Amino acid sequence: MDFESEREWLDTRFDELWPITRSITGPGFRESLEILQQDIPFEVESVPSGTEVFDWEIPPEWRIHEAKLTGPDGEIYADLDETNLAVVNYSEPVDQRLTLDELDSHLYTLPEHPEATPYVTSYYERNWGFCLPHNTYESLPEGEYHAYIDSELDDDGRLNYGHTVLEGESDREVLLSTYLCHPSLANNELSGPLVMASLYNRIAAWDNRKFTYRFVVIPETIGSLTYLSEYGDHLQENLVAGLVLTCLGGPEETLSYKKTRREDALIDNVVQHIDQYMEPSLRFRPFDTRGSDERQYCSPGFNLPVGQFARTVYAEYDGYHNSMDNKDFMQIEALVDSADVIEQVLETFEYAGYYLNQKPYGEPMMSKRDLYPTINNPEESTRDDIIQIMMRVINYSDGENSILDISERYGMSVDEMKVAIEQLSNTDLLEPAPQTPEYHSPTTNFN
Amino acid sequence: MDFESEREWLDTRFDELWPITRSITGPGFRESLEILQQDIPFEVESVPSGTEVFDWEIPPEWRIHEAKLTGPDGEIYADLDETNLAVVNYSEPVDQRLTLDELDSHLYTLPEHPEATPYVTSYYERNWGFCLPHNTYESLPEGEYHAYIDSELDDDGRLNYGHTVLEGESDREVLLSTYLCHPSLANNELSGPLVMASLYNRIAAWDNRKFTYRFVVIPETIGSLTYLSEYGDHLQENLVAGLVLTCLGGPEETLSYKKTRREDALIDNVVQHIDQYMEPSLRFRPFDTRGSDERQYCSPGFNLPVGQFARTVYAEYDGYHNSMDNKDFMQIEALVDSADVIEQVLETFEYAGYYLNQKPYGEPMMSKRDLYPTINNPEESTRDDIIQIMMRVINYSDGENSILDISERYGMSVDEMKVAIEQLSNTDLLEPAPQTPEYHSPTTNFN
Amino acid sequence: MDFESEREWLDTRFDELWPITRSITGPGFRESLEILQQDIPFEVESVPSGTEVFDWEIPPEWRIHEAKLTGPDGEIYADLDETNLAVVNYSEPVDQRLTLDELDSHLYTLPEHPEATPYVTSYYERNWGFCLPHNTYESLPEGEYHAYIDSELDDDGRLNYGHTVLEGESDREVLLSTYLCHPSLANNELSGPLVMASLYNRIAAWDNRKFTYRFVVIPETIGSLTYLSEYGDHLQENLVAGLVLTCLGGPEETLSYKKTRREDALIDNVVQHIDQYMEPSLRFRPFDTRGSDERQYCSPGFNLPVGQFARTVYAEYDGYHNSMDNKDFMQIEALVDSADVIEQVLETFEYAGYYLNQKPYGEPMMSKRDLYPTINNPEESTRDDIIQIMMRVINYSDGENSILDISERYGMSVDEMKVAIEQLSNTDLLEPAPQTPEYHSPTTNFN
Repeated sequence: MDFESEREWLDTRFDELWPITRSITGPGFRESLEILQQDIPFEVESVPSGTEVFDWEIPPEWRIHEAKLTGPDGEIYADLDETNLAVVNYSEPVDQRLTLDELDSHLYTLPEHPEATPYVTSYYERNWGFCLPHNTYESLPEGEYHAYIDSELDDDGRLNYGHTVLEGESDREVLLSTYLCHPSLANNELSGPLVMASLYNRIAAWDNRKFTYRFVVIPETIGSLTYLSEYGDHLQENLVAGLVLTCLGGPEETLSYKKTRREDALIDNVVQHIDQYMEPSLRFRPFDTRGSDERQYCSPGFNLPVGQFARTVYAEYDGYHNSMDNKDFMQIEALVDSADVIEQVLETFEYAGYYLNQKPYGEPMMSKRDLYPTINNPEESTRDDIIQIMMRVINYSDGENSILDISERYGMSVDEMKVAIEQLSNTDLLEPAPQTPEYHSPTTNFN
Repeated sequence: MDFESEREWLDTRFDELWPITRSITGPGFRESLEILQQDIPFEVESVPSGTEVFDWEIPPEWRIHEAKLTGPDGEIYADLDETNLAVVNYSEPVDQRLTLDELDSHLYTLPEHPEATPYVTSYYERNWGFCLPHNTYESLPEGEYHAYIDSELDDDGRLNYGHTVLEGESDREVLLSTYLCHPSLANNELSGPLVMASLYNRIAAWDNRKFTYRFVVIPETIGSLTYLSEYGDHLQENLVAGLVLTCLGGPEETLSYKKTRREDALIDNVVQHIDQYMEPSLRFRPFDTRGSDERQYCSPGFNLPVGQFARTVYAEYDGYHNSMDNKDFMQIEALVDSADVIEQVLETFEYAGYYLNQKPYGEPMMSKRDLYPTINNPEESTRDDIIQIMMRVINYSDGENSILDISERYGMSVDEMKVAIEQLSNTDLLEPAPQTPEYHSPTTNFN
Repeated sequence: MDFESEREWLDTRFDELWPITRSITGPGFRESLEILQQDIPFEVESVPSGTEVFDWEIPPEWRIHEAKLTGPDGEIYADLDETNLAVVNYSEPVDQRLTLDELDSHLYTLPEHPEATPYVTSYYERNWGFCLPHNTYESLPEGEYHAYIDSELDDDGRLNYGHTVLEGESDREVLLSTYLCHPSLANNELSGPLVMASLYNRIAAWDNRKFTYRFVVIPETIGSLTYLSEYGDHLQENLVAGLVLTCLGGPEETLSYKKTRREDALIDNVVQHIDQYMEPSLRFRPFDTRGSDERQYCSPGFNLPVGQFARTVYAEYDGYHNSMDNKDFMQIEALVDSADVIEQVLETFEYAGYYLNQKPYGEPMMSKRDLYPTINNPEESTRDDIIQIMMRVINYSDGENSILDISERYGMSVDEMKVAIEQLSNTDLLEPAPQTPEYHSPTTNFN
């Protein structure tokens, strides 16, 4: 890239993406995707409104042109031109004159943060409304208001998403998924796609990739449902791990990991393994049904091994879903730090999995492969670390014990084992295990 | 019922049942069953003497008319008319004159409780004898005694038992089993059938029953063997839980639960779950091969999920199997308290089991079923408890996690989850899991 | 035997075996086997040089006649006639005159133990050399040396091993394996075969054997590989436990047990069980890939339940693989003590396994087999220990719970249970479980 630093690059992208009026469908989402395509070569797909996705239906495409709430005094009290949050997302068109009383049920505020404008949506039930600071609301004069929203809800519209893969040695996949539907929110929107952009570029630059990496950017919830309805079978067959990226900026020093529904998938155990060697430590959250798109990936019919990384977690900070969630609150530096940690997790995951000893009957003869001294002399100790690690890897690589299992068994880090794994992989002794149901175990009662 | 209170009712039944000369077969058992039929509509079955039941054979039917031990001084030292315990249960007829020395091996006493008459039986080997207080025994004069027992051992007799079911929504069954063969013993006999009578009436009055409840009253050991030989296959197929009721009166404040042979059947875990919220706490006993009819239900070929409730446990109190086990020792109030706890266990068990999410691919759309707000407004928090519980139930109801598992996972009580389960069950989202091998797992090596 | 004591017997054998020039092949190995055949009726087998055994190939047979290193001063600095360690094992023939510089890479010493001669081998790559004390090496004069080794490496040779079985009631087998290839080393060579001789004679003298005992003496590594290539399938089918015997003399008070690769095979659990009752306690070592022939038996394709007993463990003492490992260091008394402990382990193992209750539906009727009193009298308690144990054994002998499991469940030792097991085995109630996959579970990914 042509930026002086990753930090500068992400800062620039943030400013390009911030002002766009996004929703789960519509031109704002597509425009945002195009901006991201500068960094990640997404293929953009579209699915028509009205398509059934499992228990849901893709809603009409929403397009918003103008939204203004004008007071009896001619003052404009809410204005889409001022902030994308001013209009309830997915508002139907309205051009009405009403008293303050009649208007009241269409106004949304945050009494406990009277200066902030809330972010409100109504995707699946037709409604309209304006969002404004509670202080403004309190000072609204009596009289006739003009509520004007120029929007379309197009049944012939579509939902869009972007995805791409970085191919690796194996066609088993690691999924990175984030969403791109909240307008003008920083931590709980732009942090995810920006960290994904960083990770795409880092992983593309790796010397080699053992796994194939899949990058998915979608509108939250309906987007992951749509993605699963199209690629769920593929993911069930190929996915060895996944991470949802959300809320990765913010002031918390500690990155936090929400476990997969299984809570002991290999990715869960790798994150816990790495945490032993990490300063500051990670925070771990159990799987629960509140969260982001992992709710869909980890629904029981799929039960995919998908965890989630976040820093300043949704619903845990004052600015959650309101205008205080801005660039001041979310630090670009925190995004870089998040990407550092997640890259390290993925690098370790590359080695942590299941291999199969190709000479499992008796020990293989190491010396004929130049992996072992030919003379057995007590002076020239064979307890040399690397040989010891190779022998352990060979013995336990039976398709049931992962490299991570071996590392924990002997109190080593996976990092310390990488050289031995590479040396063995370069001979005829070690191959990745062809089938590894241990990476994930779909719930079978539904199949 | 026409009694002023459950307490009064059970007190009356106790007095009706107490004087009857019962054994494992014979008219006393049938008369006792008839008395119980006032409260539980038992169907009474009979199986002929001589029938093989697994490794056993049903013994002849025993009928006892008179039993008197008259001393050289004309004094009657043991008399069936005075106490049912005076004669060894299943004594063969005898009409002999013998010296005290010759008589001695036919006399049974309790030296450590010299005022008490022991309860002695000899069902499977022909014998006869008298039971008397050790003090009386010590004062017996020398001389010729007249041992007179007028009894019959009828090879053409039968063994009887009573059983009935209260049907529920599912034909999967919960078994309540107790015995009715000891004459004139209170805690270790009448407490069980009386608590069963109470439970029958309570469960019959429930608004609805998810499970079918089976009530079985039998002679101990040979009765449960007989029942298993006739209904063992049915129970293996349908039973989800069972409780043996024994020794439920007595002065102990704490009710105690003996675990099933599996020790982690759902019923075991439900009792342990409830115990966390119960004051006073329950006492837990491991499974062992000493006890009541759970010894048969939990024999390894059946391995049924049958636990046992007791209060003042057999073999742990001075009055065990002797005349001190009377109504003074066993309190009617304790029976009511036992029924309270056991009913609570069963009410929780109704909800604690396995369900299947009917929309397992992705989250179901809750708002179209009016289970979720249609507008997403941070002010109107969706973290509302009931929604949270519903989402958890939906996610984990995969046939592998029980409601109890979900409750323990999130630190809730099953009670707190009932409303959510009912709401979900009223939609198309949740159904009881059709096959639930998890309720019990018969040992397969014998099949 | 005709010795005054086991101690005297083993002492005599030690002295017979010590001077022989052994290697992994050749006449020394065969001569040593013949000496051992006085105590264990080994059948001696041979496999030709050049035979492929898994990833290995049996090397040529090595015969050594003379090895002398003569200095420029006529002094002999290394001499096979003085010590078997003087020549690098498997040296090819050489008859060269060289300077000290040219000679240097063929000389092996132990700088940290300058008085000791190291034990060096080069089985699989052709080489030659002499071993000598570092002190001697330091004082070698400059000048021309005569290196003379009169040896043969015969491609038409063979590898030999000895094996035999002591048959028992069952054809399931317990393996005892040791090696016999190091010349003139005590703890790390002769201790193993001598303890095996002791155990053979003890086990042969047992009243009865439930299992068949297999005794195997081989050259280390290539011998166990060869044995597995010939008997691996048989062992996978029949082996219920195995022990490698190595380093069983030495001054350590505590015997140590290296667990099988599975670490929870029945043999592992039996050793841990016994340890609770043993003074001094055993030391436990985890499975690892450094060790003796268990490395082959526990390679993942076989994954046999083979542990290892040692006292003063290889690589943990100064004399390891050098001339300090002699009879002064290794005490005969320690061998007897090792045999005592291992015999006790095997005696307990005989009872610790899996049985099948033959009357699993309901309790069996004990009284008709004279295993239970016929009269039920509280005075004559049925809680009699032996009955209690029998009932527990009967209930849990379902092929899934071992006697060891039952013993640990109820806090008894297996020893305390022997009488009950014998009594039950003498009736029709208890049989050894016919198939017991629990004894070991071969890794299936390779099959």
